[in-house]
Amino acid sequence: MVELKIASDLVSAQNDKNAAWLKSDYEALGEKFGRRGTDIESITAQVSEFFVAVPSWGVGTGGTRFARFPGQGEPRSIFDKLDDCAVIHQLTQATPTVSLHVPWDKADLTELKAKGDALGLGFDAMNSNTFSDAVGQAHSYKYGSLSHTDASTRAQAIEHNLECIEIGKAIGSKALTVWIGDGSNFPGQSHFTRSFERYLASMAEIYEALPDDWRLFSEHKMYEPAFYSTVVQDWGTNYLIANTLGPKAMCLVDLGHHAPNTNIEMIVARLIQFGKLGGFHFNDSKYGDDDLDAGAIDPYRLFLVFNELVDAEHRGVGGFHPAHMIDQSHNVTDPIESLISSANEIRRAYAQALLVDREALDGYQADNDALMASETLKQAYRTDVEPILAEARRRAGGAIDPISAYRASGYRKKVALERPASFSGGGGIV
Amino acid sequence: MVELKIASDLVSAQNDKNAAWLKSDYEALGEKFGRRGTDIESITAQVSEFFVAVPSWGVGTGGTRFARFPGQGEPRSIFDKLDDCAVIHQLTQATPTVSLHVPWDKADLTELKAKGDALGLGFDAMNSNTFSDAVGQAHSYKYGSLSHTDASTRAQAIEHNLECIEIGKAIGSKALTVWIGDGSNFPGQSHFTRSFERYLASMAEIYEALPDDWRLFSEHKMYEPAFYSTVVQDWGTNYLIANTLGPKAMCLVDLGHHAPNTNIEMIVARLIQFGKLGGFHFNDSKYGDDDLDAGAIDPYRLFLVFNELVDAEHRGVGGFHPAHMIDQSHNVTDPIESLISSANEIRRAYAQALLVDREALDGYQADNDALMASETLKQAYRTDVEPILAEARRRAGGAIDPISAYRASGYRKKVALERPASFSGGGGIV
Amino acid sequence: MVELKIASDLVSAQNDKNAAWLKSDYEALGEKFGRRGTDIESITAQVSEFFVAVPSWGVGTGGTRFARFPGQGEPRSIFDKLDDCAVIHQLTQATPTVSLHVPWDKADLTELKAKGDALGLGFDAMNSNTFSDAVGQAHSYKYGSLSHTDASTRAQAIEHNLECIEIGKAIGSKALTVWIGDGSNFPGQSHFTRSFERYLASMAEIYEALPDDWRLFSEHKMYEPAFYSTVVQDWGTNYLIANTLGPKAMCLVDLGHHAPNTNIEMIVARLIQFGKLGGFHFNDSKYGDDDLDAGAIDPYRLFLVFNELVDAEHRGVGGFHPAHMIDQSHNVTDPIESLISSANEIRRAYAQALLVDREALDGYQADNDALMASETLKQAYRTDVEPILAEARRRAGGAIDPISAYRASGYRKKVALERPASFSGGGGIV
Amino acid sequence: MVELKIASDLVSAQNDKNAAWLKSDYEALGEKFGRRGTDIESITAQVSEFFVAVPSWGVGTGGTRFARFPGQGEPRSIFDKLDDCAVIHQLTQATPTVSLHVPWDKADLTELKAKGDALGLGFDAMNSNTFSDAVGQAHSYKYGSLSHTDASTRAQAIEHNLECIEIGKAIGSKALTVWIGDGSNFPGQSHFTRSFERYLASMAEIYEALPDDWRLFSEHKMYEPAFYSTVVQDWGTNYLIANTLGPKAMCLVDLGHHAPNTNIEMIVARLIQFGKLGGFHFNDSKYGDDDLDAGAIDPYRLFLVFNELVDAEHRGVGGFHPAHMIDQSHNVTDPIESLISSANEIRRAYAQALLVDREALDGYQADNDALMASETLKQAYRTDVEPILAEARRRAGGAIDPISAYRASGYRKKVALERPASFSGGGGIV
Repeated sequence: MVELKIASDLVSAQNDKNAAWLKSDYEALGEKFGRRGTDIESITAQVSEFFVAVPSWGVGTGGTRFARFPGQGEPRSIFDKLDDCAVIHQLTQATPTVSLHVPWDKADLTELKAKGDALGLGFDAMNSNTFSDAVGQAHSYKYGSLSHTDASTRAQAIEHNLECIEIGKAIGSKALTVWIGDGSNFPGQSHFTRSFERYLASMAEIYEALPDDWRLFSEHKMYEPAFYSTVVQDWGTNYLIANTLGPKAMCLVDLGHHAPNTNIEMIVARLIQFGKLGGFHFNDSKYGDDDLDAGAIDPYRLFLVFNELVDAEHRGVGGFHPAHMIDQSHNVTDPIESLISSANEIRRAYAQALLVDREALDGYQADNDALMASETLKQAYRTDVEPILAEARRRAGGAIDPISAYRASGYRKKVALERPASFSGGGGIV
Repeated sequence: MVELKIASDLVSAQNDKNAAWLKSDYEALGEKFGRRGTDIESITAQVSEFFVAVPSWGVGTGGTRFARFPGQGEPRSIFDKLDDCAVIHQLTQATPTVSLHVPWDKADLTELKAKGDALGLGFDAMNSNTFSDAVGQAHSYKYGSLSHTDASTRAQAIEHNLECIEIGKAIGSKALTVWIGDGSNFPGQSHFTRSFERYLASMAEIYEALPDDWRLFSEHKMYEPAFYSTVVQDWGTNYLIANTLGPKAMCLVDLGHHAPNTNIEMIVARLIQFGKLGGFHFNDSKYGDDDLDAGAIDPYRLFLVFNELVDAEHRGVGGFHPAHMIDQSHNVTDPIESLISSANEIRRAYAQALLVDREALDGYQADNDALMASETLKQAYRTDVEPILAEARRRAGGAIDPISAYRASGYRKKVALERPASFSGGGGIV
Repeated sequence: MVELKIASDLVSAQNDKNAAWLKSDYEALGEKFGRRGTDIESITAQVSEFFVAVPSWGVGTGGTRFARFPGQGEPRSIFDKLDDCAVIHQLTQATPTVSLHVPWDKADLTELKAKGDALGLGFDAMNSNTFSDAVGQAHSYKYGSLSHTDASTRAQAIEHNLECIEIGKAIGSKALTVWIGDGSNFPGQSHFTRSFERYLASMAEIYEALPDDWRLFSEHKMYEPAFYSTVVQDWGTNYLIANTLGPKAMCLVDLGHHAPNTNIEMIVARLIQFGKLGGFHFNDSKYGDDDLDAGAIDPYRLFLVFNELVDAEHRGVGGFHPAHMIDQSHNVTDPIESLISSANEIRRAYAQALLVDREALDGYQADNDALMASETLKQAYRTDVEPILAEARRRAGGAIDPISAYRASGYRKKVALERPASFSGGGGIV
Repeated sequence: MVELKIASDLVSAQNDKNAAWLKSDYEALGEKFGRRGTDIESITAQVSEFFVAVPSWGVGTGGTRFARFPGQGEPRSIFDKLDDCAVIHQLTQATPTVSLHVPWDKADLTELKAKGDALGLGFDAMNSNTFSDAVGQAHSYKYGSLSHTDASTRAQAIEHNLECIEIGKAIGSKALTVWIGDGSNFPGQSHFTRSFERYLASMAEIYEALPDDWRLFSEHKMYEPAFYSTVVQDWGTNYLIANTLGPKAMCLVDLGHHAPNTNIEMIVARLIQFGKLGGFHFNDSKYGDDDLDAGAIDPYRLFLVFNELVDAEHRGVGGFHPAHMIDQSHNVTDPIESLISSANEIRRAYAQALLVDREALDGYQADNDALMASETLKQAYRTDVEPILAEARRRAGGAIDPISAYRASGYRKKVALERPASFSGGGGIV
């Protein structure tokens, strides 16, 4: 019996209010699909089977280097975080797993596993942290971690990653995500080649320790926290890493980690083609690694990424099973609401991508009919698939309108009573 | 008698070591200038009179949203900060003033003034802070400050700025710099026009309280901490502010606050032309508001900015006296060293700009001789003016090689004993 | 009797094929709107009254500096171009006016007017061209036009603009758009301030000659054809121009003329607020001034721009009547198809913006409910308004599916017989 | 006996005027170097042996899609172009080879070879052109070339490249550079993976035909002429190409072909590390592929690229011999002057990079002394190496001040009489 954080009666009552319009809209949409020869049930079924992992660190309020403005009832520990994640999954039925960050989420492993089981949550990729110093750590990561010039510091960072694997093994994870902040702030500070050689050697040791059924995800990022150069700065370097390490090593794509104007969907296609797309950190951005809610800024871009994923599925690309994870920072919203909304947006993009008439598209591409090819994508994208998303949630026991249901539940208010606000204003960092 | 943080004997001894090469290089350069009809003494004199303010917050180690890695002997209060600033000025003789940030630098005003006097330091523009919450503050700035939808929050932010003016009056400042983080993370979150109207109304109240011999600097920034829209997002909006408020209102240009590829020197020229260039926050950047050391990434850009300033002086533009301030974040260096180096780089750009043959340039511009116009700038920029900078320091009692002198002094080690390291590792903000 | 380029029988026959689904979808949408209290007929009526001007130069195939690949049946003269424009308007009923470019479109004015009348087309803003040299022109624009260092060249450029006004007066235009390529390719080549002073003086002469019921649109652009600096580089400079010249001078916003990552909708809001939004050159872009079809790359951005326009209408902003024009380059599509599609996309964004629940949005903004404010915009944007667009076309006599109708008409094939292909391959410009 | 385009007497007379200051400055610099233990003669010797190829297409005036403003005395054929290239080499002694572009430079091969021999010029990499259509060509490249959906078009493009190899073999070239414009303007227009598969298959056929002592350079570019996606869009894809094809395939880096803010020197380091840096197309840019004169916009970036090259030499990286080529478009200058200036700037960056104290730098990097590492690079960069460059030219028989010598020679005026101006104003492409 899964422990529910929100009373199922409340969800049912909320759903009852929305049942009529959903039925009507779902039927109208089904009819419309019918005219084009598409079976809405098949789309709904596929959407129902599409899941995305929630980041444990995403249920706390984020911040910038200028300030962090805490929210009410912020989680105090990984156990509180898992409660919040359970709310998201209960209402969306789209997020059955949680991705942990170590050492932030360190806890007794038996308790951790038991808590996940009780809430019906599994554990997705483990995330190591060598971009900040933990209390009592022997060597600082101020000047790097896996690529540090000092062998002891590298050894410590490797050791930390091995510990993450051990934790993951205990709780059922099957992947390790490595994102580091290593880089430099000044021309000359680092030797590009030597740094990367040290990074590769460190990663080889981690790879060595990886169980056979695990995958190792390396994540590239153009800049921040390093402001002149970053060791794993783009997908080209990321590919070289995965290719050097071996078949279990794959590339992770965070949508916000690229240079301005970059065609991200094309990078996705290249990594698929060369067998190295490990998965995603979904979010949206306008300027840099803004970590905004998925689909909030450029929803068509999110669709185009999913268009590549569905195309690869459609072509039956071998060994293709990318990990779907959210990585966002929620500075001005209730993090639970942002994650509910983001999970929906990600499913929306997937549903729209499923609607692309791929046979017609193939024909237009073969004929260089650019206008109709574009129109074929736009037609799928323009479809308002909300009835499908809502129906998928409803059938699985979630909420037709999850934000409203969440607000009606009073969950935030309730936990705010139990979890005192932790003040954390301006850090004096400008 | 000014209190010296570094023994003058030590500086003298260091200078003695460098005296010979400086004399030789200065003479060789003077001879070279003579061939072109330039008097090196005139350049040295102008450089000696060029000063830039140091930011109080710049002597602490900075950080990113991912982590802050503290340095040794970090200042614990504004009094420690002023000591550090005094070291910078003693060695460079280029930074006789300090810019304060409130509430970070709040202290007894008599003590503050006395400390400045004792160290021979004056106070430049005051900086208000409504981008983070101070402990005990009634209203949070989570959703904005001067442009907040709530009148009480705006009133509190205005009041804070008025307090900054009062503090400034007590210690001899003549300007207030207002940078706010107000903006939005989602399309729709803010109403662009209403937000800006509220901002303008708040600023009008602050302007009202400004003494007649003060200036009000507004500072624009494209993004961060807001990631979809920022109320004062660019120089166009900044100009509208200054123009709406009145003659004491001027625009502040931070070199790192622009869109990618922006021609910043042209913005400087426009603001000069329309009488609204208030001054600068100098720093350098490659990606966003990286706050790196001035001249570290693109020294030619810094030169081109100074080329506009010297050109305006040369043309005798009326009422032209921009404020020169540094605004940087020192994450991987000793902040005192970075500020010494930056002050030198800023003077270097100024010296190089003084060397531009403006008569020749005018001719090439009139003739559309693009190649020779470019070459005229490059020729001045290519000049190694280090002997001039070093000689200016030496004559004023500073160090010929200030970084070496600073390291030789053991200042950092000494203060590290008095100032315990404040641990501040990963904030759990990702 | 308006001369139809495509037989009305053909359009009717095409419409008959689409009548059933349109009726069904329009009714379903109307019902859905009814549930929210929105009258679909009111939306359809507003969409029907929304028009956008087509650029005469847009019906020819564009190119890049590397090559131009001509299409079939390209227009040989302004008369051919007007025929093509008439096709676009016949099928979309959204583009009743054409914007001319001089000297490209120079012709006998009586014939021009008569041709427009015959086709039922009016004339929108006139566009002058001082960014390229016309055959036989006395002074070259290689080094600038309205801001040129040479007075005779400036006089020639002014004179050309006055001629454009005269042509416009003869054919019923009410506006002049001035876009110049003036700028520099090297630091030092131009004196920023003197160039802009010359530009302003030239524009003042043009403004002087402007009839009282005309508007003068200046257009900013970050770069290209100048690659270091551009005289009218951004909206800040554009505002200064309009403000300096007087009330008839307004700013034109081309969506592709901004720095990477720029929040364009915010610029639109600022120009509205300060009474200087003259109008738009609609198109889409991913990298620079790509001049792609409106809504092809980032349809949400187009919607957000229209959200500002509808918001201004909703607030009853005085004197608000921006000009809507398309400015695109069609390199790989049939230009007529691209313009049909773009006119539809622009109306789509307008229709979606009309659907925003502004009362609800005001409330969310007042409460800083960022998530629901974002969701309010997204909800409107997600609505598939194609039935409204199609119905508006149908009712006005256009085509339900204009691209299909156009292809069925064989228009391109027909004109290809009359208009020989003009070879123009690689220009040897790399 | 090499045919000189400029009388050697004139060069000598010009040099006599500059001999005194050069001697004085060279000696002063030598003395300064001596103090640091650097032998100026060793630097001068290395600079004298550094050469860069001139592009045949670079001696004509370039243009943009808006206009081309021809210069005086533009070359009418490859023979005129070679004359101009000979002038550049005569004065700089830095550009002994020319890179040809086919079909633009097609000519009788015996005559071509003889002309090169007579002028003392060799032939660098051959450049194929499948980004524009040649007159009479069977299949258009409008929708692509090596990646076209149509097999016949691909075959034609392959055939063209094979012809380029044949031409190159006849005249002594040892490399083929392949840059294509293939890509798409609309999402959906091209299938990313299939396009790239076709490209790879086509390139494999070209690779197959490559002589054993040749290299095949593929060149990446973010955008233009394609504005949504480009087949070879970045160095990641470029690496995959070179790696797939084999050891003779290498990556070419054009400095202007990257996303905004990209750290190009790091890409250079990565390609060196993985054995795939083929060479460079040098130029400078501020916005996109601006093709401005090398070092005109960001000279420190050019230095940082050379810092990587010298570092690789210093470390004795095996098989490291990148090709140095200029690729620029000269729109507002005399192309000969721009190429003279660019060759000098490239040598300047090389000379400065040679001055980096690599032992000291290694130490600072090992100690994470970011400030001194940065300062070590800056110190080398700040050195005014003009005396070395001038002395290297003088000793080899070139001009101390090549721009002045060129202007004094009247070469442009002379060829203007022989070569009529070819009018080519506005192309009607907007």
